[in-house]
Amino acid sequence: MSAAVIAIIGRMTRWGPDARGRLMKSALELYAKRGYDQTTVAEIAERAGLTERTFFRHFADKKEVLFAGSNDLRDLLVRGVAGAPSSAAPIEAVAAGLLAASAVFNEERRDYSMRRQSVIAANAELRERELIKLAALASAIADTLRRRGVSDPAASLTAEAGIAVFRVAFDRWVAAHNELGWSELVRGSLAELKALVAS
Amino acid sequence: MSAAVIAIIGRMTRWGPDARGRLMKSALELYAKRGYDQTTVAEIAERAGLTERTFFRHFADKKEVLFAGSNDLRDLLVRGVAGAPSSAAPIEAVAAGLLAASAVFNEERRDYSMRRQSVIAANAELRERELIKLAALASAIADTLRRRGVSDPAASLTAEAGIAVFRVAFDRWVAAHNELGWSELVRGSLAELKALVAS
Repeated sequence: MSAAVIAIIGRMTRWGPDARGRLMKSALELYAKRGYDQTTVAEIAERAGLTERTFFRHFADKKEVLFAGSNDLRDLLVRGVAGAPSSAAPIEAVAAGLLAASAVFNEERRDYSMRRQSVIAANAELRERELIKLAALASAIADTLRRRGVSDPAASLTAEAGIAVFRVAFDRWVAAHNELGWSELVRGSLAELKALVAS
Repeated sequence: MSAAVIAIIGRMTRWGPDARGRLMKSALELYAKRGYDQTTVAEIAERAGLTERTFFRHFADKKEVLFAGSNDLRDLLVRGVAGAPSSAAPIEAVAAGLLAASAVFNEERRDYSMRRQSVIAANAELRERELIKLAALASAIADTLRRRGVSDPAASLTAEAGIAVFRVAFDRWVAAHNELGWSELVRGSLAELKALVAS
């Protein structure tokens, strides 16, 4: 595992007593309790025992607290796709990318992700932001496939199919009674997509 | 073909001298010439020889002029999926839905769609609105599959795969030198997805 990947995993799984982690935790708690629209940056900072100024050193606005890990997730997926053996078919490279996220989609993260998901589901603006994030992931994966020599439309089709698998695996992962890990869910969803598309 | 489908096709292919069609045409011309942000509703109405009041009778705002056909397209896809033989596999039902759009994605529409696409590509807000439209299409298709008795995650996976095919077929359809029709592009993209996912 490269130093860059270790740094990404560190950032995405660090829920310690640092300012950034405390602000993320406080924001999510307030959004879940009072609603996203009813929560102010001042309240988030206060709950975290910090100032608004510190909040804005870490996040552009109260929406971005919920999407702070997006670029790291994208980098992790992209590195997974790029690092697949050169003999791997496009869909196998995409699967390698999705599986790379298992380094951060662990049990501790799952609890955070479940709460984050219910906040997002309750707010149209946040649902839109989440769609944009997923589209950006698809586009980054397609670009990585192109750099691997995959032409279009194969690159975009495979990337879009990969994001379909990602969405479904993610929805199952954060579902209330799920006991499966991220890798199992990705493999299961991918196998199901293969069966569905082949019929 | 049911009366409802004929009505949808009528609405989506009517570029005649009526107020709605003239406003859509004027809006697109101004967006292409001056940019979306630089165009006002007053200018669109004036170019169409109509009043702002008339504009707002037809469209909520200047963004919605570009998305006026979204519900009709969704209804057309949904009816196509719902109307597939009950013996059809989920992916075949989705393909029937995508192919149903060939009733409106004709040569005349293509010219409009090409110009619309370049306006959307140039503006982040419009690109986001387009993503939301595509997500709504995926969700409507998944619901229709569920009503056909398809369980989850198969319903959402197949719908997402269908939208991946839709996107790629649409991008190819509006590409500068494309000479293929909508149905050929849908069939080609679906065959390609099958080959890519199977590998």
